[in-house]
Amino acid sequence: MKSHTAYLWFETKARREFINIQDKVEAAVKKARVKEGFCFVGAMHTSAAIWVNDADDGLLQDIEEFLQQLVPFGKKYRHHHTGEDNGDAHLKSLLVHPQVILPITGGKLDLGPWQQVYYGEFDGKRKKRVVIKVIGE
Amino acid sequence: MKSHTAYLWFETKARREFINIQDKVEAAVKKARVKEGFCFVGAMHTSAAIWVNDADDGLLQDIEEFLQQLVPFGKKYRHHHTGEDNGDAHLKSLLVHPQVILPITGGKLDLGPWQQVYYGEFDGKRKKRVVIKVIGE
Amino acid sequence: MKSHTAYLWFETKARREFINIQDKVEAAVKKARVKEGFCFVGAMHTSAAIWVNDADDGLLQDIEEFLQQLVPFGKKYRHHHTGEDNGDAHLKSLLVHPQVILPITGGKLDLGPWQQVYYGEFDGKRKKRVVIKVIGE
Repeated sequence: MKSHTAYLWFETKARREFINIQDKVEAAVKKARVKEGFCFVGAMHTSAAIWVNDADDGLLQDIEEFLQQLVPFGKKYRHHHTGEDNGDAHLKSLLVHPQVILPITGGKLDLGPWQQVYYGEFDGKRKKRVVIKVIGE
Repeated sequence: MKSHTAYLWFETKARREFINIQDKVEAAVKKARVKEGFCFVGAMHTSAAIWVNDADDGLLQDIEEFLQQLVPFGKKYRHHHTGEDNGDAHLKSLLVHPQVILPITGGKLDLGPWQQVYYGEFDGKRKKRVVIKVIGE
Repeated sequence: MKSHTAYLWFETKARREFINIQDKVEAAVKKARVKEGFCFVGAMHTSAAIWVNDADDGLLQDIEEFLQQLVPFGKKYRHHHTGEDNGDAHLKSLLVHPQVILPITGGKLDLGPWQQVYYGEFDGKRKKRVVIKVIGE
């Protein structure tokens, strides 16, 4: 069994930002030299998300608006007793999820033609980290 | 380490349909001849979902109604600038998620007695694909 | 490839309860003697959840209130035709998800400094089970 671990760092200028990280995940899979296996991609914070999406800006805006309506930024959350103002970001992360597993077949990500991996920042302007871990053979 | 990959194809008659795929997942696990490992099941489209559910039609209707209320079909989504009318399907997929991992113990899916794997179609009447990948030993 | 499987049992006094199970997951990883791999943690019921969260009581209350608002206990669900009264618990589990994968690096869970694993009970006062499965090398 082979394994390979890589970390990505983000520090977005906006509080909320969605970033296509497909290239970076593919680079990690290539480096792992795994033909058959799994690639885990996970945010190391519960105020961010990792998910698989069509690469369409309209859809990304739909997601942003939907989440903002359901768990708005600016509302009073009990979490704010800590001094933080990111209660909404934790609830957004809970819904979209901070992690995915991607199958690797024949040395490549076994995704559909429109599937791209996204990092969803819900509480930016600070350093955030993502872990990519590949195992297989 | 052993691995086995299988693909399932769906083309539902209805736009939205929930299909119990437990038998097909179990068949892939059997074929993999893996005693201890993981079985990944993932939709290759972000307008469909894979999840684990009680096999109760009432509950499936609850899920359908809940999702339909939260992200209704027929609403104007920004994604529709592409010519598609499936913005709701992408948001439903985002919430229910397009993938699960299932543990394999002693050569069998290590699930609770009521847990069954479902394919959730949110944008049917077209060919859709699911990938099953087993790794282990 | 090594593997290790452990089961946790819960029987909460309250219908809904969130329990930090970080220690128990770490104990299973230690016992597995896996340096590089994945740790799966999954509820064996679709009326409970596993997720990764900040260990802050305020945030846990935010999550409880948000879920209770979105899919309230006490509402009539179609699932109740079975005699059960836990339709809300299944919908809560659908949203929060009953499973996570955690990467293992250098023999330890490769999580961010605030990430803790939680068991979310949505239909307690009965025996419930969680499976932890580690694979790797």
